[in-house]
Amino acid sequence: MADPRFFTVAGPFSVAEIAARIGAEIAGAGKADRILTSVAPLESATADDVSFLDNPHYVETFRNTKAGVVIVNPKLAPQAPAGATLLVTPQPYRGYALAAQMFYPEPPPTPGIAPSAVVDPTATLGEGCAVEANAVIGPGATIGKRCLIGPNAVIGASVVMGDDVRVGANASVAYAMIGSRVRLYPGSRIGQDGFGFAPDPVAPVKVPQLGRVLIGDDVEVGANTTVDRGAGPDTVIGSGTMIDNLVQIGHNVQIGRCCVLVAQSGISGSTRLGNYVMVGGQSAMAGHLTIGDGARIAAQAGLMRDVNPGETVMGSPAVPRLEFHRMNINLRRLANKRKND
Amino acid sequence: MADPRFFTVAGPFSVAEIAARIGAEIAGAGKADRILTSVAPLESATADDVSFLDNPHYVETFRNTKAGVVIVNPKLAPQAPAGATLLVTPQPYRGYALAAQMFYPEPPPTPGIAPSAVVDPTATLGEGCAVEANAVIGPGATIGKRCLIGPNAVIGASVVMGDDVRVGANASVAYAMIGSRVRLYPGSRIGQDGFGFAPDPVAPVKVPQLGRVLIGDDVEVGANTTVDRGAGPDTVIGSGTMIDNLVQIGHNVQIGRCCVLVAQSGISGSTRLGNYVMVGGQSAMAGHLTIGDGARIAAQAGLMRDVNPGETVMGSPAVPRLEFHRMNINLRRLANKRKND
Amino acid sequence: MADPRFFTVAGPFSVAEIAARIGAEIAGAGKADRILTSVAPLESATADDVSFLDNPHYVETFRNTKAGVVIVNPKLAPQAPAGATLLVTPQPYRGYALAAQMFYPEPPPTPGIAPSAVVDPTATLGEGCAVEANAVIGPGATIGKRCLIGPNAVIGASVVMGDDVRVGANASVAYAMIGSRVRLYPGSRIGQDGFGFAPDPVAPVKVPQLGRVLIGDDVEVGANTTVDRGAGPDTVIGSGTMIDNLVQIGHNVQIGRCCVLVAQSGISGSTRLGNYVMVGGQSAMAGHLTIGDGARIAAQAGLMRDVNPGETVMGSPAVPRLEFHRMNINLRRLANKRKND
Repeated sequence: MADPRFFTVAGPFSVAEIAARIGAEIAGAGKADRILTSVAPLESATADDVSFLDNPHYVETFRNTKAGVVIVNPKLAPQAPAGATLLVTPQPYRGYALAAQMFYPEPPPTPGIAPSAVVDPTATLGEGCAVEANAVIGPGATIGKRCLIGPNAVIGASVVMGDDVRVGANASVAYAMIGSRVRLYPGSRIGQDGFGFAPDPVAPVKVPQLGRVLIGDDVEVGANTTVDRGAGPDTVIGSGTMIDNLVQIGHNVQIGRCCVLVAQSGISGSTRLGNYVMVGGQSAMAGHLTIGDGARIAAQAGLMRDVNPGETVMGSPAVPRLEFHRMNINLRRLANKRKND
Repeated sequence: MADPRFFTVAGPFSVAEIAARIGAEIAGAGKADRILTSVAPLESATADDVSFLDNPHYVETFRNTKAGVVIVNPKLAPQAPAGATLLVTPQPYRGYALAAQMFYPEPPPTPGIAPSAVVDPTATLGEGCAVEANAVIGPGATIGKRCLIGPNAVIGASVVMGDDVRVGANASVAYAMIGSRVRLYPGSRIGQDGFGFAPDPVAPVKVPQLGRVLIGDDVEVGANTTVDRGAGPDTVIGSGTMIDNLVQIGHNVQIGRCCVLVAQSGISGSTRLGNYVMVGGQSAMAGHLTIGDGARIAAQAGLMRDVNPGETVMGSPAVPRLEFHRMNINLRRLANKRKND
Repeated sequence: MADPRFFTVAGPFSVAEIAARIGAEIAGAGKADRILTSVAPLESATADDVSFLDNPHYVETFRNTKAGVVIVNPKLAPQAPAGATLLVTPQPYRGYALAAQMFYPEPPPTPGIAPSAVVDPTATLGEGCAVEANAVIGPGATIGKRCLIGPNAVIGASVVMGDDVRVGANASVAYAMIGSRVRLYPGSRIGQDGFGFAPDPVAPVKVPQLGRVLIGDDVEVGANTTVDRGAGPDTVIGSGTMIDNLVQIGHNVQIGRCCVLVAQSGISGSTRLGNYVMVGGQSAMAGHLTIGDGARIAAQAGLMRDVNPGETVMGSPAVPRLEFHRMNINLRRLANKRKND
């Protein structure tokens, strides 16, 4: 059970209600009318909790769980403890996510503008928006419905946002057009000038950054992540893309749909990512590269060249996965051989 | 043309006016009185636009451009499309930067202190300063002329700034002396305590951080970049140095003039960089190193030793460029050979 | 002497007073009643200054120092210049830290709530707290005694803090229980949602993040560092742990006591660190790992496996220190041999 000081639980819900919501089949003991009050991990769940098994690594824990109902895929379902009620779905983690959302729905913003917030009179806000303490919204900004602008956040002039956007505390947004259901986490920085200047022996000459940041729907931008606006073209982040904390996205970068960028990764200017690209933590990409759909970039990889669709690359400079493993095995073999010389 | 919701265009300007401003020679068709209204990339430029060619990679695009005038270096000028008007200069990117500044001059701050800003009565501000909504300026701070203190920014006690400094939204500055024409991007953190403590089995003992941050003129500090103040000596950033986003600069670091630090690089305490050093993205330097003038540190390099002036180093631990390439080639060769064994 | 615009000096103090405070033995010339007015490095110290020698690298500077008194360990004490007064202790850096704290004690917060701060009426603050300009404290937050909430910082609903906590400018804290004497540096982000979602071809499904962040006593969290709250379990940071700037700590991570995490390191979700672990700058750990007590992770290392207590690992992927050095030596040898072929 989540700490009630911070989280409010909804429900209770029956197994049947949960099955309907997450699209799973009731199996095992099949007690459709059993009542559940919360979610919990397999090892600590009680008869009142919904739990789930996704990673086969935890099958042993599953065999001994006391959870009231377990969301599980068809292949692992036979390992259930005797008498357990199951919710069988090919995507148990997704099922768990939806069940957890039932018990812990995100509270909607409490509409209203805090007296200490500073909203320019020329800005427009859709119905149901909350603008929290000391937030600042600039002239001409257009905010959709039910948006939440967190405390001390700053929305710059002429920024456009869709509906149900949540901007975290102390975040800043400028020169940006943002879709619906986007989450900008605390301290994220959207739309500042890209890193553009012409060298000069006295002082670099600044290149005006004349593009914008375009963000699709259902995007997350992590805490203290930075997304620079374009230099002339725009910086683009496709719908459904998830960006973790402390990520750097340079000017003119284009990211496709449903990509995942893990923490502290960095993408240099003008590089383009297709759809469903997985970018590991602390990996880096040089500028002007093309990364194909479904490519997978390992953690700490350093990309100097394009990556083909579906390819997995590792290392710095990055090479295809198999080559990386061969390089590494041979290096270790060589080191151990020399040790014995 | 930049999005007019976010950018206001100046001009129009004639070819002759632009040539005079950027110091280029009119060539090609040489229509000095042609009128231009904006800037654009070669591929999308129209007869009303100024464009430029810097990277020989884009010569083919240059041959087919419809731009009204193209800024180009003397060597590539002969590749121009028939009838094109050219502005010839040995530094076309610099020329473009200056031309773009003509069309999109940065608006000066609108002088005044927002009613919600909190400026200590003992702080002094030069004429023409703008202090935006909810910004905070501490006691004894001395701000020069025409500075822009962005929304929710915090300027600590006794901080000194020159003229024409711009501090971004939600940035914070403390224990710092800052030159003129400096830009501190949103969320940058200047002058907090360095990472200093003496180990102790119960709890580390904090070492008071008694230095400052000294920043020269014409410096940029990127979004969410952190610059710790000195432990006793000062942390110093020389004039004309450009620092990208999410960079870490430890206490007592000294950086010379016109260095470039790319995003997510990190410099440990007491390391010294000369002038014109290039620091690649995600590279790291151990503490107490000396990096010579004009040295080049590759992206993701890890420096454990000093670097000579003009030297290029790569890899982690970093080695001279040629050695790095040899190591890499041999490793790949070995891996491919073993594969065929 | 520290810049008096930024730092206020206490004292003066006699050698005897300092010896008593730092627990050192007076030796050398042994002038216990000599009066000191500040601290300074060996090379610039005058007869009025306390200095220290910790690193044997600086013995030559020690031999020539003009410092009024030098804190030094017993082994290096014989290298002192003739006539010098010494304070001998096995931990000279710790001794210096305590002496510097005598001369430059941190001013206590000036109690009071700034008129521009927004403190929810249901929040409670202990005696002696300072809430600075434009800070925001949410409903039900419980703040201990003598805490300092910096300008534009945001403390979320129901957050609990012990005594003598200092929250830097523009930092944000939510869903967190924090001990005493903790320092959260400017721009640090505590308690936002972890990076949790279930893949889906249309848009990822968010997994509610139902845990908290638990921080012990005497912890430092660096500028712009991010600590996500747990997904169900809590994210835990043990007492006495020091975290540098721009570090990423994922959901469910558990860190023991007195660990040190250097700048730009990253720890993925559910990884557990024991006590006294040293984590180098820009190193990364995959998720679900176990790192033993006293382990040492080199800068830029990339951990894919567990690390034994006391083990030192280097490289990406990380291997034991000796193996790393052998791999590196052999690679360089191979490269140089081939060069001469």
